[in-house]
Amino acid sequence: MSQAPLFHIDVQISFGHCDAAGIVFYPNYFRWFDRCFHTFLLHRHGGHAAVCKQTGSRGIGLMSADAKFRSPGLDGDLLTVEMGQPVWGKRSLTLPYRGLVGERILIEGEETRGIFAEVDGRLTAAPTDTLRQIIEG
Amino acid sequence: MSQAPLFHIDVQISFGHCDAAGIVFYPNYFRWFDRCFHTFLLHRHGGHAAVCKQTGSRGIGLMSADAKFRSPGLDGDLLTVEMGQPVWGKRSLTLPYRGLVGERILIEGEETRGIFAEVDGRLTAAPTDTLRQIIEG
Amino acid sequence: MSQAPLFHIDVQISFGHCDAAGIVFYPNYFRWFDRCFHTFLLHRHGGHAAVCKQTGSRGIGLMSADAKFRSPGLDGDLLTVEMGQPVWGKRSLTLPYRGLVGERILIEGEETRGIFAEVDGRLTAAPTDTLRQIIEG
Amino acid sequence: MSQAPLFHIDVQISFGHCDAAGIVFYPNYFRWFDRCFHTFLLHRHGGHAAVCKQTGSRGIGLMSADAKFRSPGLDGDLLTVEMGQPVWGKRSLTLPYRGLVGERILIEGEETRGIFAEVDGRLTAAPTDTLRQIIEG
Repeated sequence: MSQAPLFHIDVQISFGHCDAAGIVFYPNYFRWFDRCFHTFLLHRHGGHAAVCKQTGSRGIGLMSADAKFRSPGLDGDLLTVEMGQPVWGKRSLTLPYRGLVGERILIEGEETRGIFAEVDGRLTAAPTDTLRQIIEG
Repeated sequence: MSQAPLFHIDVQISFGHCDAAGIVFYPNYFRWFDRCFHTFLLHRHGGHAAVCKQTGSRGIGLMSADAKFRSPGLDGDLLTVEMGQPVWGKRSLTLPYRGLVGERILIEGEETRGIFAEVDGRLTAAPTDTLRQIIEG
Repeated sequence: MSQAPLFHIDVQISFGHCDAAGIVFYPNYFRWFDRCFHTFLLHRHGGHAAVCKQTGSRGIGLMSADAKFRSPGLDGDLLTVEMGQPVWGKRSLTLPYRGLVGERILIEGEETRGIFAEVDGRLTAAPTDTLRQIIEG
Repeated sequence: MSQAPLFHIDVQISFGHCDAAGIVFYPNYFRWFDRCFHTFLLHRHGGHAAVCKQTGSRGIGLMSADAKFRSPGLDGDLLTVEMGQPVWGKRSLTLPYRGLVGERILIEGEETRGIFAEVDGRLTAAPTDTLRQIIEG
């Protein structure tokens, strides 16, 4: 993510996010990636349900996700989760994420999502054109 | 729960269920209560979706829940979550739960649930008769 | 909670907090009660770890918890979780909570917590005096 | 994972694991990867705490994780999470995972973990030799 982030959320890391080693239990970071994307849709484009209606889809769901854990998140840390510009494929978009506490990078990762629509009773990844137009205006 | 339990599930308590104090983070117990009820519906009555169809409802959701924490759950404990006989109200049912590791009681609690159906565009708790017949046969 | 709340946190309800019925999966509310208490300790009293050190305890953990669910939480709702004044017992404190979306009450509940210290190798609830002094100044 | 899996756990997918689209909320899969690894340590090698003691480490934590989502997990599915043979690096091990419902592949992914020990007050990834000996005997 060399460019300015497209969106971000702040997460106050709390006791309950941490595991018995006293650091953030890692699946939480993926919850926060997902929450960042959904909050972006809510604040900028009317929310996931509205965008699904506009794109004729059932959901903008996951095809893959990954993360590299650079530094442990601790109880009391104020984490900023940044989402970068989507990279557009024909039937998928890839969203880069970064999590920081001040200057310290905790995590870098990405989600690849598809726009899932029902075609002949099966969920299939639809072309991304409509969503791209919504997001890039 | 003085009588024999109606149903139970086993939960292998794992590292990720524990918080920074090294004991189960308490909201997990409510996830396991809920999972016990849904697994009961699945194994005995075709699952939540099937039961919703039979009762003409949207969901068998929560009206209240509570728990008393008797002893901490630890990484490596094999927890048995027992669900007792429902106590039937006109528009609600109360499910008692108990969580044990061997003879040691970790938790006692209950969920009160309603059978939520849409009436005039609003979710309302429907009479419990149909569900009672399904469960008690 | 007839008095002014002692503390509150805001929670942006997101897609991932909701279950297959499209409403908040209820154990999340208990995560937010817990997070409200821990954020209160962080912002007002140096955090849970600092307070444990001051009180010579291992953790300020749960003895019981309950909630009444008044109205469903939905994707996109901005939930305010309010924590009221603690009610002090000799070896426990009870924290009242309320969750609101605007004027709409979603949830009311409470946590009863003990200040757990190791005495002769066993975790025991210690007197609340020191914590009360820290919180009430 | 072309070879026989080293270990597996079964997960009864429940209502509460699913999101508002009615399919498993994806961070849960990472919780189940982690749970599979920890249950492996518990059943085969005395548990995470015992292995930490033997390796002189604080935890066998995450360096990276990824997953490809092949097919949605549904309420009522009985998911088998398989963990393959670790691929050993000098200071990391990579664990391959696969999740199946019958013959249907839901997910493929991996975790790369380090054996974190405190060296001069900093958590550092230690050589994997000792853990490898424990696991491969």
